Amino acid sequence: MIERAGERLDAFEQSRSAMNERIFELGHLGIKRFFSLDSACYRDGALDGRTKELLGLVASLVLRCDDCVDYHLIQCVEAGWSDEELHDVLNVGLVVGGSIVIPHLRHAAASLDALRARLAEAGAGGDGV
Amino acid sequence: MIERAGERLDAFEQSRSAMNERIFELGHLGIKRFFSLDSACYRDGALDGRTKELLGLVASLVLRCDDCVDYHLIQCVEAGWSDEELHDVLNVGLVVGGSIVIPHLRHAAASLDALRARLAEAGAGGDGV
Amino acid sequence: MIERAGERLDAFEQSRSAMNERIFELGHLGIKRFFSLDSACYRDGALDGRTKELLGLVASLVLRCDDCVDYHLIQCVEAGWSDEELHDVLNVGLVVGGSIVIPHLRHAAASLDALRARLAEAGAGGDGV
Amino acid sequence: MIERAGERLDAFEQSRSAMNERIFELGHLGIKRFFSLDSACYRDGALDGRTKELLGLVASLVLRCDDCVDYHLIQCVEAGWSDEELHDVLNVGLVVGGSIVIPHLRHAAASLDALRARLAEAGAGGDGV
Amino acid sequence: MIERAGERLDAFEQSRSAMNERIFELGHLGIKRFFSLDSACYRDGALDGRTKELLGLVASLVLRCDDCVDYHLIQCVEAGWSDEELHDVLNVGLVVGGSIVIPHLRHAAASLDALRARLAEAGAGGDGV
Amino acid sequence: MIERAGERLDAFEQSRSAMNERIFELGHLGIKRFFSLDSACYRDGALDGRTKELLGLVASLVLRCDDCVDYHLIQCVEAGWSDEELHDVLNVGLVVGGSIVIPHLRHAAASLDALRARLAEAGAGGDGV
Repeated sequence: MIERAGERLDAFEQSRSAMNERIFELGHLGIKRFFSLDSACYRDGALDGRTKELLGLVASLVLRCDDCVDYHLIQCVEAGWSDEELHDVLNVGLVVGGSIVIPHLRHAAASLDALRARLAEAGAGGDGV
Repeated sequence: MIERAGERLDAFEQSRSAMNERIFELGHLGIKRFFSLDSACYRDGALDGRTKELLGLVASLVLRCDDCVDYHLIQCVEAGWSDEELHDVLNVGLVVGGSIVIPHLRHAAASLDALRARLAEAGAGGDGV
Repeated sequence: MIERAGERLDAFEQSRSAMNERIFELGHLGIKRFFSLDSACYRDGALDGRTKELLGLVASLVLRCDDCVDYHLIQCVEAGWSDEELHDVLNVGLVVGGSIVIPHLRHAAASLDALRARLAEAGAGGDGV
Repeated sequence: MIERAGERLDAFEQSRSAMNERIFELGHLGIKRFFSLDSACYRDGALDGRTKELLGLVASLVLRCDDCVDYHLIQCVEAGWSDEELHDVLNVGLVVGGSIVIPHLRHAAASLDALRARLAEAGAGGDGV
Repeated sequence: MIERAGERLDAFEQSRSAMNERIFELGHLGIKRFFSLDSACYRDGALDGRTKELLGLVASLVLRCDDCVDYHLIQCVEAGWSDEELHDVLNVGLVVGGSIVIPHLRHAAASLDALRARLAEAGAGGDGV
Repeated sequence: MIERAGERLDAFEQSRSAMNERIFELGHLGIKRFFSLDSACYRDGALDGRTKELLGLVASLVLRCDDCVDYHLIQCVEAGWSDEELHDVLNVGLVVGGSIVIPHLRHAAASLDALRARLAEAGAGGDGV
């Protein structure tokens, strides 16, 4: 399960980055400005960027978008949130969004396990990385 | 088409059960209580459990969740609802939710065929099953 | 609370019927055919019309449409479903749709009380009605 | 019905403009940039602004936002679309979004009548306006 | 605008509390358990309750529920979040949910002004409150 | 990326057509009438069919249905809309629906590239087609 989720995350990251580049090439000013607004809204402001990533995660979960859940989980793990804290976020999303959210909760749980496995591997293999 | 839908259902059931177990292991009290509430709401009450499964099916269809549609279709077939009755439920979901529901109606029709094929096979092969 | 919900239901029914008539006058064939499809899908078929009204109610609740909830509650009460049975339907809608459904559950509970009060009044005032 | 819809539209336009001004005063750069992106996307581009208003209308209808429907209806009427053309747009929204859209279709039909009445009044009262 | 929003908030709080009580009276076990799960998920856990209220606010905004937005805004103000921090939350909700969220952003901005006015009044009038 | 999107489109078109046929075989009158209403609403009327396909595309995008996006993109390309015009439609969908639409925008961009590649291939190989 975790291995398959790991491959799924790799494929998502590659395809996301390739298609974002392709969309940039299209050269549509409105779309490009939207992408830059999107990046900007998770940066430190009155509220710190770390907390904003939690907001992105819960919003993605209640709107039931697996790719968006994966993207924000990656950011949340990088920002140093613990599993227990992230489970609390998933729980809020589940209660707000209802049982229709459950398939996306399963997806999120598999992704989180894969992200932790990736970190463990990087830690084991790395010298001072 | 039907064969592929059969394999798809098998994969869904395996992954659903593995990930539900994994989520249970996480040990988050709120999430566990939600799962138990979710199971409880389809049990016999003032309204019988059989009818509640139809409610689960139509709600899943208008909210456009394929996994949820599959789950409730499986329960509905087990509860003895006929194809004609289930088509009536799908029709209500289609009219309420609109043409955006059509891809999920195609999914549901393929799943229902696969479930009937599974039953036929079980019936043909089994003595005293 | 109940009185205000009663007036609200009266206003909804008047406005619904006036505007449906107005839409009919527009003479758009596609829209008229959609309205007739919509009426047809709640009639007795392989599944009886009474049960279909429950489907309409739960679909309206998870899609969070107060007017649709009111419309189907009126039909459900007319079809003879008890409060206890309808609460079971509302509960399924709440679990599937999550806490975001709660404001519509409050709305539904007020409407149901008003519909019962209306029935009681009709019963008290009527000879042989 | 039409009169009441006319007052409703007046109130919406006043409140919309007052609150947009208030939001501008808040001075949040991200929010301000979003509002400017929003205005920009309906301007003439490869596709003309008139057609983009139809897109805004149908998107508002299937997402079931009455205020957004009213806003785009006002723009569509100003852009010179006829009732028959706008009914076609509403019909697409109805078919895509399903019967859950019907309360918003009733709202749209009342708003459109009120907008035509407003135009007729302006035409009757005006000298060469 | 602010005054009207203040009255609107008062009416919401009264009606919310009256109808929650009414729903409790219905005595449906599943519904009661859902309400208790809902309260529990915003309590301090691995993640503190203050942050969870921000999650509730952004989830309510992207799901476009005015009553839920008001409820969580009240909690966020009580929890001591500043206007600037709350505007950052609203901005994330706007970017994730798109322009369809704007009417609810206007609603939220009016409610927040009314909540601050309420606090100022309470502060001005009270000795030892 | 483009090749994979081309195979994805082929698979979608085959499965769509096979399952639509299967649904037709089920013989449910309500469902069949819905499908015919759905086809009818994109035909020339007061508004031309070409423009209605743009409406179908933007509605599919804001409702975040990849299969529906693909279906309407195919129609839009056949109707002769240019890439630049279609990007404008996608931009409206992105602004209305927010960043949650981005994964579907990536999907749409990949599909559009694959459709253009298909056309180019057909053009290169064909004499007088």
